[in-house]
Amino acid sequence: MVLKVYGPTFASTKRVMACLMEKEVEFETVPIDILKGDHKHPQFLQLQPFGVVPVIQDGDYTLFESRAIIRYYAEKYKSQGSDLLGKTIEERGLVEQWLEVEAHNFHPPIYDLVIQILFSSKLGFPADQDVIKESEEKLGKVLDIYEERLSKSKYLAGDFFSLADLSHLPFTHYLTGAMNKDYMIRDRKNVSAWWDDISNRPSWKKLLQLYPYLIFGNVLQV
Amino acid sequence: MVLKVYGPTFASTKRVMACLMEKEVEFETVPIDILKGDHKHPQFLQLQPFGVVPVIQDGDYTLFESRAIIRYYAEKYKSQGSDLLGKTIEERGLVEQWLEVEAHNFHPPIYDLVIQILFSSKLGFPADQDVIKESEEKLGKVLDIYEERLSKSKYLAGDFFSLADLSHLPFTHYLTGAMNKDYMIRDRKNVSAWWDDISNRPSWKKLLQLYPYLIFGNVLQV
Repeated sequence: MVLKVYGPTFASTKRVMACLMEKEVEFETVPIDILKGDHKHPQFLQLQPFGVVPVIQDGDYTLFESRAIIRYYAEKYKSQGSDLLGKTIEERGLVEQWLEVEAHNFHPPIYDLVIQILFSSKLGFPADQDVIKESEEKLGKVLDIYEERLSKSKYLAGDFFSLADLSHLPFTHYLTGAMNKDYMIRDRKNVSAWWDDISNRPSWKKLLQLYPYLIFGNVLQV
Repeated sequence: MVLKVYGPTFASTKRVMACLMEKEVEFETVPIDILKGDHKHPQFLQLQPFGVVPVIQDGDYTLFESRAIIRYYAEKYKSQGSDLLGKTIEERGLVEQWLEVEAHNFHPPIYDLVIQILFSSKLGFPADQDVIKESEEKLGKVLDIYEERLSKSKYLAGDFFSLADLSHLPFTHYLTGAMNKDYMIRDRKNVSAWWDDISNRPSWKKLLQLYPYLIFGNVLQV
């Protein structure tokens, strides 16, 4: 039975699909329409009790939380496709560190920017300019630390591409595209070179082609 | 050179120390006084550019982010002390899943409760009752999902104690102690049995004895 990935149009699911494509693992996708309430359907809640995407089904194994899923596949197919965890326990430690930084420092402000700038009108509330300003400042400070880090190594965890870099792809894609905030990347030399590198990986370009970003059913032009 | 752990009085650092004690790894602690601004000192920022605890130094290896550090030591000393990652890749996947749930679903509302109820007056702002109410509701919903999960397995990731359970100790300790919200645990039969189990582990009891919780220099009575 082919691996099933639920909710392919969502950014956090793209984190999972990017990993699977790097690992050359075949999968099929199951659409989740949040406007129709698919994510609150009892059958879906059996798989994911919090009612959010992504979730995967691999035979009788079910797993949710995007960053748990990518760790699982990076480990399961360690020697297939790109190695995304580093070669030593110490390298993996640094992958974990920057993956945590992505989750706890980078993600919250970029998520708030995406919601306020791209989704607020669709969700029926006005964009809050104070939240936008504050989130952009927070994100800028995180990117300043990345700029310093990337002056010392090509990628976040060292001189190898890893889950830590990959995990940034889905939301940074909004920043440089639909949100018109490309300058946040371009104003920082090392971050800019890093972004050019990771966003031009063949797996990511193929993913964007096969699974475009949708905002409530419309293909998002970027 | 003995492993150094920075900021032993802080709850997130206790996540690291609980893991080290389960793994029977010796360490020494380096105090960090946030009122004196130790966490913003250039020397500390060299170790942890975001200026937060914990951070560890193990010979010439430096690592920050509590959940990255516990993964690193659970892996490095896989066969020493308690096994905290599960026996198979699939079990580890579930450990990662519930560790992510702890970080993204459980932690934000319990952190807000701790700040508002225990720290607001010390930090010089009034407790926001709306935030307290909303956070308690959110945390309650998460604990309802735990209650269901723990009706099927003794621990979060399965029938074995793991990093996923351990990661809940430091902040739940505030909930059942200083915050007087023990009922949030006790009203849920399976969560209650799980909490009794994990909070009575010898390593955690020893840690509380050796490294008490401090709130701005005062031993926190719980």
